[in-house]
Formats: sequence, C-alpha cells, structure tokens
Amino acid sequence: MGKQVLHIDCPDEKGLVYRITEVLYNYGLNIVSNQEFVDATSNHFVMRTAFEGDRTPEGVVRDLNKALPADANIRRAEIGHRSIVVMATKEAHCLGDLLLRYSYGEIPADIDAVISNYGELEALSRAFDVPFHQVSHKGLERRAHEKQLQEVIDRYDPDYIVLAKYMRIFTPEFVNRYRGRIVNIHHSFLPAFIGANPYRQAFERGVKIIGATAHFVTEDLDEGPIIAQDVLPVNHTHTADQMANAGRDVEKTVLAKAVKLLLEERIFIHNGRTIVFE
Amino acid sequence: MGKQVLHIDCPDEKGLVYRITEVLYNYGLNIVSNQEFVDATSNHFVMRTAFEGDRTPEGVVRDLNKALPADANIRRAEIGHRSIVVMATKEAHCLGDLLLRYSYGEIPADIDAVISNYGELEALSRAFDVPFHQVSHKGLERRAHEKQLQEVIDRYDPDYIVLAKYMRIFTPEFVNRYRGRIVNIHHSFLPAFIGANPYRQAFERGVKIIGATAHFVTEDLDEGPIIAQDVLPVNHTHTADQMANAGRDVEKTVLAKAVKLLLEERIFIHNGRTIVFE
Amino acid sequence: MGKQVLHIDCPDEKGLVYRITEVLYNYGLNIVSNQEFVDATSNHFVMRTAFEGDRTPEGVVRDLNKALPADANIRRAEIGHRSIVVMATKEAHCLGDLLLRYSYGEIPADIDAVISNYGELEALSRAFDVPFHQVSHKGLERRAHEKQLQEVIDRYDPDYIVLAKYMRIFTPEFVNRYRGRIVNIHHSFLPAFIGANPYRQAFERGVKIIGATAHFVTEDLDEGPIIAQDVLPVNHTHTADQMANAGRDVEKTVLAKAVKLLLEERIFIHNGRTIVFE
Amino acid sequence: MGKQVLHIDCPDEKGLVYRITEVLYNYGLNIVSNQEFVDATSNHFVMRTAFEGDRTPEGVVRDLNKALPADANIRRAEIGHRSIVVMATKEAHCLGDLLLRYSYGEIPADIDAVISNYGELEALSRAFDVPFHQVSHKGLERRAHEKQLQEVIDRYDPDYIVLAKYMRIFTPEFVNRYRGRIVNIHHSFLPAFIGANPYRQAFERGVKIIGATAHFVTEDLDEGPIIAQDVLPVNHTHTADQMANAGRDVEKTVLAKAVKLLLEERIFIHNGRTIVFE
Repeated sequence: MGKQVLHIDCPDEKGLVYRITEVLYNYGLNIVSNQEFVDATSNHFVMRTAFEGDRTPEGVVRDLNKALPADANIRRAEIGHRSIVVMATKEAHCLGDLLLRYSYGEIPADIDAVISNYGELEALSRAFDVPFHQVSHKGLERRAHEKQLQEVIDRYDPDYIVLAKYMRIFTPEFVNRYRGRIVNIHHSFLPAFIGANPYRQAFERGVKIIGATAHFVTEDLDEGPIIAQDVLPVNHTHTADQMANAGRDVEKTVLAKAVKLLLEERIFIHNGRTIVFE
Repeated sequence: MGKQVLHIDCPDEKGLVYRITEVLYNYGLNIVSNQEFVDATSNHFVMRTAFEGDRTPEGVVRDLNKALPADANIRRAEIGHRSIVVMATKEAHCLGDLLLRYSYGEIPADIDAVISNYGELEALSRAFDVPFHQVSHKGLERRAHEKQLQEVIDRYDPDYIVLAKYMRIFTPEFVNRYRGRIVNIHHSFLPAFIGANPYRQAFERGVKIIGATAHFVTEDLDEGPIIAQDVLPVNHTHTADQMANAGRDVEKTVLAKAVKLLLEERIFIHNGRTIVFE
Repeated sequence: MGKQVLHIDCPDEKGLVYRITEVLYNYGLNIVSNQEFVDATSNHFVMRTAFEGDRTPEGVVRDLNKALPADANIRRAEIGHRSIVVMATKEAHCLGDLLLRYSYGEIPADIDAVISNYGELEALSRAFDVPFHQVSHKGLERRAHEKQLQEVIDRYDPDYIVLAKYMRIFTPEFVNRYRGRIVNIHHSFLPAFIGANPYRQAFERGVKIIGATAHFVTEDLDEGPIIAQDVLPVNHTHTADQMANAGRDVEKTVLAKAVKLLLEERIFIHNGRTIVFE
Repeated sequence: MGKQVLHIDCPDEKGLVYRITEVLYNYGLNIVSNQEFVDATSNHFVMRTAFEGDRTPEGVVRDLNKALPADANIRRAEIGHRSIVVMATKEAHCLGDLLLRYSYGEIPADIDAVISNYGELEALSRAFDVPFHQVSHKGLERRAHEKQLQEVIDRYDPDYIVLAKYMRIFTPEFVNRYRGRIVNIHHSFLPAFIGANPYRQAFERGVKIIGATAHFVTEDLDEGPIIAQDVLPVNHTHTADQMANAGRDVEKTVLAKAVKLLLEERIFIHNGRTIVFE
C-alpha cells in the first residue's frame, strides 16, 4: 500500500486544523503524520498530512475546498510514484551518488533519464541502466539549445528536474516552463564569492568552511528558495583543487537530501522561502 | 501576554487531532503551533499545542478529558513562569553557561538557587545574584545527605532540577521523588567507556570524536531518556586532559539546549524514549 | 612525477628531526610536507615526510637507519601506486561510493577486485569494470572459507583490504595474515549497544545521534585502532530502519575518508591508537 | 615551567627544517611540537616550534637569523604570559563566555580590562573581577572617540584586542596602530548578506544554516584574514530573532576558539590568509 500526501496552504485563520481534520476523519483516513506551520510574518498557514492508502479519495479534495478559504492551495501526491530527469555536464559525483542511491532503493522515484550537454557521463548512466541523452549546446543559441532540451525532457514528463552540476544558465522562459520543479546544487562559502572560480577565491581568502546549497531554480541565478545546506571544514593545507574535492562530498550529500525531501513532498514554498517538514 | 502549552498523549486512534482541535476552536484559542507524532511501534499519540493567552481556560482541559480516551494524559504549562534549581559539584562550565544565558534572558525560567556539595562555585553563583547553598556530603550517609538536599530543594519547589556536573549518584528514592523532573549532562563517547576516568580511556583508544548526552535521571544511572546529544572532533594531539577540556564545550552546549527544550515544554517521555518537538 | 612518503617512528630523543632532515637535505629531496608528533604518554616520535620524486633513493633509507636509533621503523611508500581489494556482503552503499570515487579519480589506488560471500553486488562491481569474486561461505567451516578468500586475495596481492560492510567475523589467523592492512567500517552510537540489531536498540533508547567508525581490524572484534569517525543527527521520527538508512550516509563517508587517509599513508599505529596526519 | 613558541616564516628553499632544527638541537631545546607548512602557491615556508623552558635562549634567535634567509621573520612568545583587552558594546554572550572560560583557567592569558561604549556590561565584568571602562562615543567624532579608546588600551599594553561584539567601525589609523592584534567575531551566512539587519535578510531568504567567522581586523571591514568559522542548522520555525539567538551560540564558540588559537600562537598570516596549526 502506498502513501498519500496532502499539501494545504492558505492565509491563516482560526480553526483550520479542526476543519481539515474533520474532513479527513469523515473519510476515515489513516493518518500517519500531520505537520503544520504558521508563518507569523506573513500570517500564512501550511499543512502536510500523510496517510496510508492506494489513492486519495476524490471527495477529500472537494470537501477540503468547501471547508477552506477560497484562496487555499490543495495539492495531493502519491509518494513513490514520481519520476525525475537528471541534468549534468561533466562531473560525476552528484549524478553518480543519485544513481547509486536509486540502485538500492533510496530515491522514492524513477530516474527516467540523464541529459547532458557532453558525453562524459554516458557510461555512468548506462551502468545503472538509465537512458542517457547528449544534447550538445555547441553552435546553438541558448533558446535553440533549450528547445532541444525541452523536447527530450517533455518526452519523459518528469515531476522534477534535478540539476546535478549542470553548468549552464537557463533563460527565464525555460525556468518558467518548469516553475517550482527544477532543483539545483550550488557550492556556497562564508563569505560568499561572486564571479569565476569561487574555490580559487575561497582558497585565497583562507576560508575554514566550504558548503553547498540545494535550491529551487528561479530567474534569479542561484537565488531561488533554499531547500538544504551543509558545510565541511577545510584548512590552510587545502589547495583550491582540494577545496573543490572536499566540496564534492558536501554537494552530493546536500543534493541527495534535497531530492529526497522533494520526492517525499516535504517542501512548501511561500514568499520565496521554503518550509521543509523533515 | 504569555504562552500556554498543552501536552496531550494517549493510545492512537482515528480522529484525535480533529477532536482536540474542535475543543480548542470552541474556546477560540489563538494557536501558535501544533505538533503531533504517532509512535508507530507502540501506537501512541503525542501532541503539543502552543497558544497565546494569559492562562489556559479551565474548560479546555475538562472538555478535552471528555473528548479523549479515558487514559489520555493532559498537561498544561505556562511558558516563562517556571523555575529551576541547579546542582553542581566543582566544575564551573555548565553552571556558568546557564547563569550567563539566564543573565541575558535566554533561559525561560527563574534559576532559584544553586546547590553544591562543595563551596567552589559560590562566588560564581553570587556573581549572578543566584542564592548558593552548600550541602556537604562529608560524614553523611547517602540518605542523610539527600534528606538535607531535599530540604533545600523543596524550599524552592522548582519545576525542574538541573544537574550541571553534579558528580554524585542519587538513591532510587530521591530519583522517584522528582521523577521526570531531573536532567543530567553526561560525557559520551564512541565507543562507550565504562568505569573510572572515561577521558583517559577515550584517549588510550584514540577516539576521533567526543560527545555529551543530556538525559532525564532514572534509577538506571546515566541511562534515562535522552533529550539532546552532540559531539566535537578530537585527534591524536589531544591529551586526556585536552579531551576533557574539549568535552566541556559540548557538555555546556548540550545541557543548555536540553534545559531550554524542557522549559519550553517540548519534550514527551514514552516507553523510555523522548519525543522532542524542536 | 609521483609523490614519495617516508614514515618514521621510534622512541623520542633530542635531535631526531635534525638528523632526519639532514639526510633528506643531503639527498636534495624536494620536501612537500613534513609532519611530526611526539606521543608524550609513551614518549614515542612519529614523522611523515612527503617529497616529490619518481622513487625514494636507496641511500636515504640506509642513511636514515644509520642516523636513527636501532629500533626505529622506517617505511617508504609511493602514493598513487597502491592497490586495494574490497570485501562486502550485500549492501551497496559503501562499495558503490568507493567505486564511484574510484571512477572519477578520487581514490589514489587501483581497486583490483571486489570479493563477496553473496552475488548481489556483482552487477555494481562490473558496472565499474572491477572484477567480482563470489566466495560463498555456505556449507564451509570458517577456516575453509577463509582459505578460499585468501586464495583470491593473494592473487591480487593488495596493499590493503577494505571491508565495505563485510558482515562476517574473521579468525585471528586471518587477521594476523593481513595485520595492519584490513580496514573496517562499523556503525557507532552514543551510548554503544552490544549484541544484535543495534539500530533497533538505538531506536528504543531514543538516541539523537548515530555514527560510524572506520578502524583497523584486530583480533578484538570492532575494537581495532580508530581511523575516522563521524555522526549524523536523528530524532524521534526516525524508525529503526530510517536510522539504519541515515547510518548508511555516515558509514560511506567515513569509510571513504579512512581509505583515502590510508592510501595517502597518513596513518601511524602506536600502542593501539592511531596518529592521523590530516 | 612555561612553554616557549618560535614562529618562523620565509620564502621556501631546501634545507630550512634541517637548518632550523640544527640550531634548536645545538641549544639542547626540549621540543614538544614542530609544525611546518609550505604554501605552494606563494612558495612560502612557515614553521611553529614549541619547546619547554622558562625562556628562549638569546642565542637561538641570533643563530636562526644567521642560518636563515635575510628576509626570514622570527618571532618568539611565551605561552601563558600574555594579556588581552576585550571590547564589547551591549551584548553579553561573547564577553560572558570569555570571562567564564577565563575564570576556570581556559584562556591562557590575563584579561586585563573590558572596554565598552555603553555601561550595560559593567556588572558582568565586575562579577569576574575584571576592570571595566566605559568610553562613550556620544557626541564625539570617530577619531576623538578612538583617541580615548587608545588611551585606555595603551594603559594596559595588551598583546591582543578582542572585539566581542563591539559594534562600531574603526578608522584605518586605529586598525594600523594595532595591526595583526585585533580579532573580531562576525555573523556569517550562506549566502552572505550585505547591509543592515542580516538576520532579517537570512530569515527572509530561508537559510538553513547560520554561522560565525572570527577574523583579524584590517582596513577592509569584516574582510580580514579568517581564523575560525563554524555553523549551526536553523529552519523555517526560526524567526529572525531566533536565528540571532542561535547565532549567539556559534559566535561565542568561534570567538573563544580563535582567542585560544591566538594566545597559543598557532596562527600565521601570509598573503591575507591564515595558516592555523591546530
């Protein structure tokens, strides 16, 4: 038997939990967990309910719509019946880690395909029996390239697109097409470094910590809502290359965590911030 | 305006959240947060509800009692109107850290008194204007000493007793008298070391991590329900003394965290395990 | 050009660094790093010197032998020209992570072969073009099984044997045969749990942290010198299975770290403790 | 008996360790630890030698000067005979933590005085018997204020000045006067936030980690060489204020670590980066 998840969010008012749980109770749902949060800054209510069952009864969403304010968002999802497409460029660590976890059942979704603008990662993808598509950007304008990418992505109609070190920037049009469905992993530092070769800058600044941030992709490059972050200690003995190496470990771990949170439908986005029910 | 907390736990059954939130809704309570958990192993339901108000209306508990199974535990508490007594022996780090946090308003309770079997910590306590009581164990049998301790403790009638490196073992009678109300901090290692001088043993074993565990005190020495844990890295350059020094940092941080969780009523104990709503 | 490492250890006395660096200077070696440590408890001196070069001149070791006390241990190794054999049972996370790192050049050694008592991991090994040997223990006495294992291992003559969740215990004879060359990964908890199903015990005790320890294998099961340790936070929402899942992440990371430290010859063992020059 | 430390740095060339340890050996020094590092980027050699003794023999520095390149920096220090002055504004957490550690002997120096532009921290300082000086900036131009600060600081002639949440910016003249001797603690985020109220910005961005950086103060505000950094996890339930609260824990821990590293003379600055021999 699968697990169903209901995502509800709306402006806060008294009695929301009562009204929601009344509907769920009327349908006799076997609730496994129930998480709520009210963002006091924006007075916004958010609730995730997981229950056991093969499917969410049709009436539940209808009755919730009646019981809740008109501007409530109600979304349902079946955990474990999702699919993702992974995009990468040449680096194997994030893609490989996802494929490995997928191979032993830790990713609650199908990895339908890997898409890359280069061919380096083909063998790795095929080793895990995942279709690989090379969509080279060579000689193409950005939109022409994205059109080809879209064509491959849409063939699979994935729930989410995971950028596992995909090193190109998307146009706002592309981002909008898959709004809220693209996740990226990005190295992060204290302090932050702007511009080329951040690990070189981090080295020159002598940072003692390097990190990674998994976030949704929005028009603002590397600025979308943050899903997960972590850091590792480094020191003066690390060259810029060794910092980048160490960075791989935290990048792959943070991305895998974000992908699992996403696929278990544990993330809400409100006002540019995420609410993550771990 | 204060913050009220309701703690409810009972065997799980369908509709509990619905019935509870119905009562809260009927009383028009302004709920700030609502956290639930069902321990699938024991089929036990646990819920913490925080709401704003000067006090919990009498009727709420009465109506909850009617709405819930007969064996439900319902407890209410006012955050910020609690008191603790701290017990210590000679080491200043945990006591000092609590007093310091208390001085800038981070401990949501009054520290009514410090009790020690030695006199070393008197100046520190007085520096923060907290009454200090030396209750020496010299020449006393364990129960006679505990009788004197009880006499001082009961004068303050504290909500909780915090053992901030109090280095003596209590009798089961003493523990029972304050059941569920005594918190201790204990160094912890991977692997664990039994017997005298654990930091010496940890050094000889070459551990790379040292930790601390804050837990409720039960008859089983150092074995009560765990509230919080953390670790710090160490290496071969640390002597046993330096490991103990490093251990102080993690001990004081973990104890302070546990005390705050306790005073915000975020902890449930069920089947010897804690459920901590962070 | 490769990197050479000299490992020297002996009872401490004045002038050791001077005498050692005099020899190195006489041979004009281009020293990249030099790390020393004196274990004050046992008065033992330990030094790791890395220098660039294709090989260590013969005379260096001879002259060091002359310059140092008679009981000095002098060992040299070429980084990057080592080989390992990985042993596993059925779980893919540690083996897969090593193979993945190997595939992108992060393991400074050849992974010559994977040996398992089951067949589950064959596809994974072959996906990374590493020979796989199933050596079943079914119907064999422990020594007869180990004889078959030895036969396969010795065919490759590896520098180190990495137990990547190999779930069987070795006889002292087997351990002695590869003394100081077998590394294991072991889940670890605060407190430690003895006996079967430690994750179940950790769950029942409500631990807030789970960890992993990489260590050399000695006759004392899970008690050999510790190389690396790390932990992850868990909480009451983790079932025993989810704790075990989380444990996989820390197990694979700690094992990979230990293997890299080993292959870069950063580890000394003295008096049952490791000195790890990170 | 005290502990002496020699700090040596110069452009790298072959035989430096040999030549240095020859001098130390000639004087029969009892070396406790010896740490070297060559920054391959700038080809710069750095060495810290600790040895036991009441003082460093005069001849040692003279002979080292002869043995080493003309542009070598040689510095000696006696651990445990240093002094610091702490500057703060109104927040007690960093100052209090330092005073507490000082009270139980964890700071290897005298805290000679506390200086603040406000009076809030006077009671705390006096509680630990440390002289407190209020030097208000009210109605004073920056330089006039700094002149008064200088006058108090120079009365104590401290080895280092520790900014424990001192919330004012210094002129380059002030910074230059105490070049390499002022340490600051600064909240840090991933990503970094510029401008007012960083915790508010961090909250609005939904960061999952907050951190702190201890660094030397240079003319570039909050941009001096980094000594130590650490982070803590936060989540959507943290308000901006609660993030700031959590930030206090990491700020005080990182500052205390930096102060100890400084007073044990474990830090070199080269090319704007620190080399920290932990």
